[in-house]
Amino acid sequence: MQAENIKKAIQWRQLIDVLLDSNQFADLVLKGGYIINTVTREIYEADVAIKGEHILMVGDTSELVGSKTKIVDVRGKFISPGFIDSHMHFESAMLTCTEFSRLSIPTGTTTLIGDPHEIGNVLGVHGMQEMIKEAKTLPNQIYFTVPCAVPDVPGLETAGFEVNSKHMEELLDDPYVQGIGEIQSFSNIQPVYENAPELIDDLVAAVSYANCIGKTVEGNAPGLFGKELAAHIISGGTHVSCHETTSKEEMVEKLRYGISVFMREGSSQRNMAECIRAVTEEGMDSRRAILVSDDMVPEDLLNDGHMNDIVRRTIAQGIDPVEAIQMATINPATHFGFKDVGILAPGKRANIAVIDDLNNMRIDQVYLNGKLAAENGELTINLGSYTYPDSVKNSVKKAPVKAEDLHINASGSRARVRSIVAIPDQNLTGAKEFNLNLEGSVVQPCLKQDVLPLIVVERHGRTGNIGKAFLNGFKLQSGAIAESVAHDTHNIIVTGTNYEDMVTAVNRVISMDGGIAMIKDGKVVGDLPLRVGGLITDELSGREVSEKIAELTRLAKDELGCGIHVPFMHLSFWSLVTSPEWKITDMGLIDVNKFEILSPVVE
Amino acid sequence: MQAENIKKAIQWRQLIDVLLDSNQFADLVLKGGYIINTVTREIYEADVAIKGEHILMVGDTSELVGSKTKIVDVRGKFISPGFIDSHMHFESAMLTCTEFSRLSIPTGTTTLIGDPHEIGNVLGVHGMQEMIKEAKTLPNQIYFTVPCAVPDVPGLETAGFEVNSKHMEELLDDPYVQGIGEIQSFSNIQPVYENAPELIDDLVAAVSYANCIGKTVEGNAPGLFGKELAAHIISGGTHVSCHETTSKEEMVEKLRYGISVFMREGSSQRNMAECIRAVTEEGMDSRRAILVSDDMVPEDLLNDGHMNDIVRRTIAQGIDPVEAIQMATINPATHFGFKDVGILAPGKRANIAVIDDLNNMRIDQVYLNGKLAAENGELTINLGSYTYPDSVKNSVKKAPVKAEDLHINASGSRARVRSIVAIPDQNLTGAKEFNLNLEGSVVQPCLKQDVLPLIVVERHGRTGNIGKAFLNGFKLQSGAIAESVAHDTHNIIVTGTNYEDMVTAVNRVISMDGGIAMIKDGKVVGDLPLRVGGLITDELSGREVSEKIAELTRLAKDELGCGIHVPFMHLSFWSLVTSPEWKITDMGLIDVNKFEILSPVVE
Repeated sequence: MQAENIKKAIQWRQLIDVLLDSNQFADLVLKGGYIINTVTREIYEADVAIKGEHILMVGDTSELVGSKTKIVDVRGKFISPGFIDSHMHFESAMLTCTEFSRLSIPTGTTTLIGDPHEIGNVLGVHGMQEMIKEAKTLPNQIYFTVPCAVPDVPGLETAGFEVNSKHMEELLDDPYVQGIGEIQSFSNIQPVYENAPELIDDLVAAVSYANCIGKTVEGNAPGLFGKELAAHIISGGTHVSCHETTSKEEMVEKLRYGISVFMREGSSQRNMAECIRAVTEEGMDSRRAILVSDDMVPEDLLNDGHMNDIVRRTIAQGIDPVEAIQMATINPATHFGFKDVGILAPGKRANIAVIDDLNNMRIDQVYLNGKLAAENGELTINLGSYTYPDSVKNSVKKAPVKAEDLHINASGSRARVRSIVAIPDQNLTGAKEFNLNLEGSVVQPCLKQDVLPLIVVERHGRTGNIGKAFLNGFKLQSGAIAESVAHDTHNIIVTGTNYEDMVTAVNRVISMDGGIAMIKDGKVVGDLPLRVGGLITDELSGREVSEKIAELTRLAKDELGCGIHVPFMHLSFWSLVTSPEWKITDMGLIDVNKFEILSPVVE
Repeated sequence: MQAENIKKAIQWRQLIDVLLDSNQFADLVLKGGYIINTVTREIYEADVAIKGEHILMVGDTSELVGSKTKIVDVRGKFISPGFIDSHMHFESAMLTCTEFSRLSIPTGTTTLIGDPHEIGNVLGVHGMQEMIKEAKTLPNQIYFTVPCAVPDVPGLETAGFEVNSKHMEELLDDPYVQGIGEIQSFSNIQPVYENAPELIDDLVAAVSYANCIGKTVEGNAPGLFGKELAAHIISGGTHVSCHETTSKEEMVEKLRYGISVFMREGSSQRNMAECIRAVTEEGMDSRRAILVSDDMVPEDLLNDGHMNDIVRRTIAQGIDPVEAIQMATINPATHFGFKDVGILAPGKRANIAVIDDLNNMRIDQVYLNGKLAAENGELTINLGSYTYPDSVKNSVKKAPVKAEDLHINASGSRARVRSIVAIPDQNLTGAKEFNLNLEGSVVQPCLKQDVLPLIVVERHGRTGNIGKAFLNGFKLQSGAIAESVAHDTHNIIVTGTNYEDMVTAVNRVISMDGGIAMIKDGKVVGDLPLRVGGLITDELSGREVSEKIAELTRLAKDELGCGIHVPFMHLSFWSLVTSPEWKITDMGLIDVNKFEILSPVVE
């Protein structure tokens, strides 16, 4: 029993007074709008009466209007429950919860389910708890789903901390922790089963504990079907989601298996248009179809919106507007077991989006806990700003590197090397061998073949490992790019056309205590310090980060000649060892399907 | 963490082995049937593979078939998740959980949510815990929703024990207790608010505790709309059901308010055909429409079936068969937060109904926990029989009554009296005054006007109260009927054409330790001992109780000339003070709307 539960009981009792005592009245009535009923899938005209933080009643509220009741005229507008983003990472936006909320609240999003596994990889339980602590200062609803396995693949990468079943009580007992987040260590479940079955024991233990205390578990099953999909679902305790569904065929199979499919529509990966065909073409019941963003950059939040934009795109695919809104309100509320949001009904939290037009999903007003929080796209409340403590900064624990630390050596005059092959707009990679020249014993980059060294420097002060491989397809013409955002363990990843600039770039990231650095001819072309865990800035606003990233992207293209779209995001995913085929970690080049570390040079 | 959770974790781990280790196989495959998919609302051909108590996979299970795998050919048949009855009272059937299960399992019902508030009124927490103990011996899933307010209306009736917020930890902490049952003390919420607001404080406290520990709360809102409905919903913690919805208009309002409407189709009260019009005529999303039985007599279970029959009737109203099955599977599972039933999917409990034909809903086979439990309407497993301990028998604590105890006295030669008016097939009553003759000072029954004494004798050994009133409309021609089934406090209720037979009937119930007795001219015409709390028999099978009730009903008509349908059930409801207008308790004639005790004789 938390104090908050007691507060809710007291407030419920007060609501009953207002409803049954003819001398008590609502604080606020939204009058004359069209209710979006997310349970009955209807639209009809009704008023919404609010007392304190909650909805008193929806319907004819005339008896609840007293002399002090504020009336807001919403005639011609649509009144919807605030939107829920069921799966998102604050770290992807490089923003604090506060700055993300500043951008998302005016778009009608009132509930966020953050998955803090990035900061968890860097700073463990403490880092995640610091993020949760920030979220508790905010008026929107922010819950977290936390990892139960950090690093993703023990033995193949070095995280700052480990998280496993031992940490579950400490993490899950917090009422703001909704459950276990995406179990991506088990996406590729057959190889894990064959190579590290003990990880599955640990997973099932963590999942069972979560279920026992009423918490949920999110899956992560890209491309899984049949037996493997079944095994993944059971690993997650049978009631799981998947936000990595990319084809109609997968959507059909997963819905049939009872999975809540989180159709992802983020800044880079967009799967809804394909997934939704299971509804539009096959007529499947959409109760477990849910919209999520996963990864959003601030620029998109500012320019296009958040869940309102995703709902708009879903309507554009031929889904009825109320059904689309169900996918961002009652469907996720039901998945998570949230009893207080997702529908406008008596006693529910008065988190409300007032919508001008259902087709463009323009948000006129947003109410949080019964109070006007945004109007015409601008916040009307003061969120303040949030500064993280030093305990989650200074996370880059590495002395400066020297050229010989990064050199990839071979013997003879020419070396056959193994190279990761970039696939634009995907986390997946290819795998290919190339022949490269040597200078002395050092294998040289080759611009002609577009093959560059790709190196990961352990930066958590644990092993000092430096993993080495090559990269084909980044289309860099000069200089080097390094960053401390490198999924999921977030060591420093660097690539470049020459070792000298790579060294300077890595050392710049180290000296900034994390962030992104671009170097050309020994000089800083551009950088962005991300001092919170090397992932997030608490110094810049969402708008400033958006402008900074746009500037860095332009510089990467103009100054370094980088021909790939969103280069920093691509670079950050080539160390993610939960998706095939070859990836790089601080331990070296990884064959993901075989759980093997390969030498960058073919012997 | 209960041992059962650990067992489930171990079993999940084993299922993963079978799925991913090519040398392990399913125990059982149901082959070639049509799957009823309750999430996608589809029917398609697929196999179901089972290992131990759980479903391994649904689809192409060929790789899971080993030499020891049993194959059951279900070609041409429909494979559905077992049915859930979300609200039922074992006491209404006068059966133990075991005997009820014996009748309901072969009809495809695999989950029962019992509300033990009848035995709770007689025997308090201990009585309910004894029933829960019995349920744990059975292979079907039985959960309970327990009362948080016994008696229903303190101050107007005497129960054997009190139950209130103080008892919640003791009751709700049991993993087989799903939550708080129908909060019927608050059906008529405005009078409760005005007369006993402290009861609402206690309710909100109990409800909040339940919600805090992840338990649910069931509502009970007959005829409530608008503000009162809103207050009732909030009293129940905002996520409530209602199984007392009788009109389309109520169904529309309640679904719009987010209530899970439990459309009741029991032995006496049937509301589905009216409620379902919100779906068939208004096209409302049916995700919160749920089918329940509430009160079933054994005869109907034997002759017509249980949830399968209710589903059949729902299909007959024009609902698609899969949508109707959703209302008895995934919809209730979602309402209660059950993660392991309601859909055929990997890792779910293998509780399965094999259906011959979707329109007649004939059940061919039933699987419980992966084992064949019934075939062609007959159990194939041994349920044993269950004998309750003496601590829940000997519940009738009352010395024999004498004629003068029951006499209703007045002065003069003729008295004006207050009479409850029976309304056939309803719990509601009317209220009317009559003029009756006296013999000495004793008011006499009048067959001509059909006005008889209606008396309730407190039998819990607490007050010795005898409440007195009159009854019009029972159409009894001779003799008397008494029973210890008298909602909800279950004192002894008696009516008759003469005081002598009424005395004998009451004393017969006392000497049997509870039950039903019919007396004519001082002789026993028929009786049924109900020794468990005066409500249930653990001596007769379901079939025997069915035959006995049929015999008693025939005797009531033939020997006593009683012209009302199901006389024992009607009699038992005239003491239920949660529904208007006049009722009788051990404390006297009650004006339900005014919370007042009235004298049977107008002064």
